[in-house]
Amino acid sequence: MSIEAVLARVDSDLPQSLERLFELLRIPSISTDPAFKEHCDAAADWLVRDLQSFGVDARKCPTPGHPMVLGHIDGPGPHLLFYGHYDVQPVDPLSLWRNDPFDPRIEDTPKGKVIRGRGTADDKGQLMTFVEACRAWIAQYGSLPCKITFFLEGEEESGSPSLVPFMKENAEALRSDLALICDTAMFESKTPAIVTSLRGMLQEELTVTGPDKDLHSGYYGGVAINPIRVLSRVIAALHDDSGRVTIPGFYEGVADITPQMRAQWDALNFDHKQFLADVDLSIPAGEQDRTPLEMTWSRPTCEVNGIWGGYTGEGFKTVLPSKAHAKISFRLVGDQDPEAIRSSFRNMVQAMLPDDCKVSFTAHGADNACVIDASDDRFERARVALSDEWNVPAAYIGGGGSIPIAGHFQHILGTTPLLIGFGKDDDALHSPNEKYDVESFHKGTRSWVRILAALTQ
Amino acid sequence: MSIEAVLARVDSDLPQSLERLFELLRIPSISTDPAFKEHCDAAADWLVRDLQSFGVDARKCPTPGHPMVLGHIDGPGPHLLFYGHYDVQPVDPLSLWRNDPFDPRIEDTPKGKVIRGRGTADDKGQLMTFVEACRAWIAQYGSLPCKITFFLEGEEESGSPSLVPFMKENAEALRSDLALICDTAMFESKTPAIVTSLRGMLQEELTVTGPDKDLHSGYYGGVAINPIRVLSRVIAALHDDSGRVTIPGFYEGVADITPQMRAQWDALNFDHKQFLADVDLSIPAGEQDRTPLEMTWSRPTCEVNGIWGGYTGEGFKTVLPSKAHAKISFRLVGDQDPEAIRSSFRNMVQAMLPDDCKVSFTAHGADNACVIDASDDRFERARVALSDEWNVPAAYIGGGGSIPIAGHFQHILGTTPLLIGFGKDDDALHSPNEKYDVESFHKGTRSWVRILAALTQ
Repeated sequence: MSIEAVLARVDSDLPQSLERLFELLRIPSISTDPAFKEHCDAAADWLVRDLQSFGVDARKCPTPGHPMVLGHIDGPGPHLLFYGHYDVQPVDPLSLWRNDPFDPRIEDTPKGKVIRGRGTADDKGQLMTFVEACRAWIAQYGSLPCKITFFLEGEEESGSPSLVPFMKENAEALRSDLALICDTAMFESKTPAIVTSLRGMLQEELTVTGPDKDLHSGYYGGVAINPIRVLSRVIAALHDDSGRVTIPGFYEGVADITPQMRAQWDALNFDHKQFLADVDLSIPAGEQDRTPLEMTWSRPTCEVNGIWGGYTGEGFKTVLPSKAHAKISFRLVGDQDPEAIRSSFRNMVQAMLPDDCKVSFTAHGADNACVIDASDDRFERARVALSDEWNVPAAYIGGGGSIPIAGHFQHILGTTPLLIGFGKDDDALHSPNEKYDVESFHKGTRSWVRILAALTQ
Repeated sequence: MSIEAVLARVDSDLPQSLERLFELLRIPSISTDPAFKEHCDAAADWLVRDLQSFGVDARKCPTPGHPMVLGHIDGPGPHLLFYGHYDVQPVDPLSLWRNDPFDPRIEDTPKGKVIRGRGTADDKGQLMTFVEACRAWIAQYGSLPCKITFFLEGEEESGSPSLVPFMKENAEALRSDLALICDTAMFESKTPAIVTSLRGMLQEELTVTGPDKDLHSGYYGGVAINPIRVLSRVIAALHDDSGRVTIPGFYEGVADITPQMRAQWDALNFDHKQFLADVDLSIPAGEQDRTPLEMTWSRPTCEVNGIWGGYTGEGFKTVLPSKAHAKISFRLVGDQDPEAIRSSFRNMVQAMLPDDCKVSFTAHGADNACVIDASDDRFERARVALSDEWNVPAAYIGGGGSIPIAGHFQHILGTTPLLIGFGKDDDALHSPNEKYDVESFHKGTRSWVRILAALTQ
């Protein structure tokens, strides 16, 4: 079977492919906020119907949280599983969006046409590249060159609480020869990439309580401890002056990168000055004895994702607040143990509190980092297919983000994950005005056509 | 004229007095939030009508912000001016209120009956003690024993932006022999007090900007600076380990208290353990070489009144935010210069920022501390009147709060301020479930009847 005919069909069907994607983007499937539960359900329903429309045996599977979508279509070759997620991040601060985040549109920009809206890049636009590749193949030849299982999640942006139990209960249905995941970015804007390592994640929320009620800073100011002051001291102490995280035992299990990997990464000539300049910064903020690529791909981090306490409205209120809160996450690498770090973090915070203050913790997600063995020859076949589509050599890279599913495929199902995505650094993931390049969507779909062929040779 | 008959009338009219206060409390006159502008106006209108109802020549005076209420009533003796404020603090967090903050009610508590609602103690309940005292006097005798000017403000809780220009433009109408201010508390719960010093106030809001947009902590975490981390370091650095504020020059103009004052304060046997235990604390958090009374009455402070940045909603969002914000205020004493401290604070913050971060400041209020000469014999006459009503010796005390109007009477009008109020430490000023004791309201009204008589002997 020639793939040229399938690629031509992808090209001619692009307007219809975009229209289908827009339908999915219009559903505000924000998984972290209970107010959007029905919309998550609606997104799952839409995907089931869309997969069925080109012959996939698809169904919605309930979980204690948002449903999974499972689909299967038979074929002659190897059995591939495809993973993507249909849920999206919250949209606040809404005031910074130039358009309704759930009214997607094509915009002309100096860098080319983009699809603007929440979930365009993370991950609806990406998952639909694979769906559209399969649809084009079937439209052209009536069947696929391999067996495919679709596995689409609705809780990726809220810590995937149902994922592991679901994978364990449905291990047979999810068994495959290789797991494809489309939720990553290219290397810089023109070089496609296969991600061979991902950082893990640990999420903690904490509340420091000083006085048992909000106080007037005139009466109690000076005598009563201010929990914002306490929390700030804790946060300030989490890094030393060299950018190193100070939690005892934090770096246990963190290995230096191999010489081979360092050589590959050095060859990429990563322009960290431009990477920072893109967001109006100039100074790498991580450990000062590491390169910027190491900081994002191979070093663990500690970030405050949110902080709040006291009066935050218009004007001024001289309150001495009772409580101060923060959401703190850690990106993990290598063999770092999330639960050991959670425990060490909590002990460190507790030890820093004045004796008359209290702290409470809420555990959010915890996932180990993921390191993938890319010596398997299917990686090289996929890399060549990608290189053919984009006319540049595709790269093996590390990933700074956390995609827990990759580790779950390894550890629960014993399946190797192959991570290929078409995001760009300036997609504004998790931010206002998220976008996905039309080129990413179009050439991403074409890339999957080539990769399906390459993997079924 | 015997005051016994006036006191008896205060007693018999208590239910009607409370009903009038409730009408005023039901008006949500939150001055700091523009959404409540009409309600501030309505509160001023209500006061004008109420003062007119017992013969005061009252009117509402527009300002660029919320209106002032001015009223005058003639009499034979000296000319007293009375100041109070009709605006109230915001009510958030609303979820912590057990009742609608603007649906006031009488509640039985283990310590006696209280009036529950926003503004009961700060300052509507307090200002109405004086209004009710005048009303009772006129009801009994048809006139007052002295001339009185009423001066009621609607911007006290939002930095009083219109106050100084208004006082300067209306200096003639505000001229008096003594300015009475009812916006302070008793000393502990049973001892009435005259406040002879007040802390000043400096308010600053700052925004630290790192990257120019919110980022995905997976892509940029580790390389891009997090503005919450920067802001936390700034806040943590504002106090040293001994509780002393570290801003260069901060303590210029701060004098130790006199031996006489120390003797008076020591005689009060202030129970700081109970004061802290009332809010579930045990350790004085100010400068460790100062007594707790010094900390609140004679030492300057630095408090973070609010902090916010990043994702603060339900669940988790691994954002690396662009901005972090804080509202910070300083209580000032003696001759501290607010503008010099503002400038030194800003320089200190600027010097702590990484070179690729930015900070912007918004100036809110700035007022010097106020020290009152209480050697005037009218202070002693008022103190004896208070002692008679409450059956314990009234005290001269310092005030930890900031009542800029007291200094303005001194410096703009050359009038001595006499600060007497009936608040209690557990009134929950500026907090959810604010209350004012019915005893404070009732005996406060009776106290003013006695003080009017004492000052017009």
